[in-house]
Amino acid sequence: MSESRRIVYTPRAPGSLETADFSLQSAAAPVRDGEQVLLQPLYLSIDPYMVRLLKGQGSYFGRVAPGAAMRGRSISRVLESDAPQLRAGQVVLGETEWADRCWAPAQALTAIDEDSGIALSAWLGVAGHSGITAWAGMVDVAAAAHGETVVVSAASGAVGSVAGQLARVRGCRVVGIAGGPDKARHVVEDLGFHACVDYKSADFAGQLAAALPHGADVLFENVGGAVFDAVLPHLKRYARIALCGLVSQYAGPAQPLTLQHFDQLLNQAVRLQAFRVYDYLPRRDQILAQLVSLIRSGELRYRETVAQGLEAAPAALVAMMAGRNLGKQLVRL
Amino acid sequence: MSESRRIVYTPRAPGSLETADFSLQSAAAPVRDGEQVLLQPLYLSIDPYMVRLLKGQGSYFGRVAPGAAMRGRSISRVLESDAPQLRAGQVVLGETEWADRCWAPAQALTAIDEDSGIALSAWLGVAGHSGITAWAGMVDVAAAAHGETVVVSAASGAVGSVAGQLARVRGCRVVGIAGGPDKARHVVEDLGFHACVDYKSADFAGQLAAALPHGADVLFENVGGAVFDAVLPHLKRYARIALCGLVSQYAGPAQPLTLQHFDQLLNQAVRLQAFRVYDYLPRRDQILAQLVSLIRSGELRYRETVAQGLEAAPAALVAMMAGRNLGKQLVRL
Repeated sequence: MSESRRIVYTPRAPGSLETADFSLQSAAAPVRDGEQVLLQPLYLSIDPYMVRLLKGQGSYFGRVAPGAAMRGRSISRVLESDAPQLRAGQVVLGETEWADRCWAPAQALTAIDEDSGIALSAWLGVAGHSGITAWAGMVDVAAAAHGETVVVSAASGAVGSVAGQLARVRGCRVVGIAGGPDKARHVVEDLGFHACVDYKSADFAGQLAAALPHGADVLFENVGGAVFDAVLPHLKRYARIALCGLVSQYAGPAQPLTLQHFDQLLNQAVRLQAFRVYDYLPRRDQILAQLVSLIRSGELRYRETVAQGLEAAPAALVAMMAGRNLGKQLVRL
Repeated sequence: MSESRRIVYTPRAPGSLETADFSLQSAAAPVRDGEQVLLQPLYLSIDPYMVRLLKGQGSYFGRVAPGAAMRGRSISRVLESDAPQLRAGQVVLGETEWADRCWAPAQALTAIDEDSGIALSAWLGVAGHSGITAWAGMVDVAAAAHGETVVVSAASGAVGSVAGQLARVRGCRVVGIAGGPDKARHVVEDLGFHACVDYKSADFAGQLAAALPHGADVLFENVGGAVFDAVLPHLKRYARIALCGLVSQYAGPAQPLTLQHFDQLLNQAVRLQAFRVYDYLPRRDQILAQLVSLIRSGELRYRETVAQGLEAAPAALVAMMAGRNLGKQLVRL
């Protein structure tokens, strides 16, 4: 290829995150070495961890330094391949630059079966890292069991929506927390949660209490902050918290977390376990087999919010962090 | 008995805890029913949970309401017994009023062997609930393993001192945190911790970092607040926190906990597990056998701070909460 367009992180201040902190730049074809594959990204995955990637928080993400091309997981079509295991025309999953053409090492790519009956985009969300994250937290970390009551924050998001449905499938009573009446309605009517409380409502605390008359056995936590704090008094003895994310803490400069009800952890002998999707990738095939089966049977439903075009990717990231997405946020190129 | 003297909780304000919030009162002999035993308490156990008992916090403690006699675990001599399994003259362990004479139900008392080679007072501390609590947190919850680095807060206290020594016996590198240079010296020189950092020192953060050049695998947490927060950045990937207490939160009115470094739990996939000694009482005999063996071999050392006389009990509780004790705080009657 002679040239590609890509999104470069060019922040006006360290760690800042607005659409204007990214630039669309043209670049000459990078030098390639090893068994490289030329890719045409079809879908970019837009995820909360990317904010931490830009800030260099959370060592295992690495960092996108100012001036570097933004990167993330994507579904791409192979245009050229030096590698024997991949051929032009195939669809692959892997980390790429946010670009319309880019090279990637063959060994970091996974071929996707276009005839699987699963939409290509789903391999980034419900049947991808979002789904594996949800499975890890709900099934492995929290071990939500039949008859238990489960609370899921960010319930309409890519991970929370799957986490709550996995609990429902396991026979739990599932209470979501989401921002706004439309999201709350979607979570109940489309995703089959038993209830969903709008944390933006003036009567959030009262509605949460009404939805949890007997308390909660499990909390799948994506948000942190005041919403997290509000759930703590409802945790039952030996409750488990699967700590997936603290999205409310990611934006802006590092800030302390103030919890009124931290001592509830002590009072109720609670276990809080943070986890990383990376630790579950060795079990990826086994986990995805379960998720795909549930998608095919219709028990696991999902929604996507899809922005159009490479240049729309920065705004899609900003919008997702502001909670303006429903389900998985993607960019279609 | 015709009359007894006992300590009654008579707070000037709800939940307040000063020596003046207790009264020494004389009472007629209470009516007894069932198989009751008349006891002469010899040692009263003074513990942080008592503050929560007085405030009615932490449901499993129950509550000592204003106007009620204060109560706690004690070592007592049997003066009279209606129960076939206990006879006058025996020494027993169990919960009693803070009194010089009181009745207690026989089934709630455990006979103590005076010829065990273990000092009577130790059955309230290192070989009692304090020791069981330490074992539960360090061995069962945190599962501190050979070669790991362990941090123990309140390291010179009744529980922390045992917890750290159990880690040392298991082949861990043990770093204590204590208040003041005398306590820190005691923790290293007498208890055999590898290091101990004085949290009252102006250079606490620097000293903590110097004591943890490679981070910590386990945190046995007794305190909460700023000391807890200061340890979080040193936690390694997959670190475990055994949450035993939040003593810094108990005094005064309920207050929020502000943590600068809560996101470290997420970054390092940390597990925080709160636990209750009550859940370990079914394994009491097995746990105590291990502790007693270590006491006899000299590997587990302990210190006691002993106040004299029933009337000294309230001040002993207040002093312990202010950190003026070394090791187990007791009252000898």
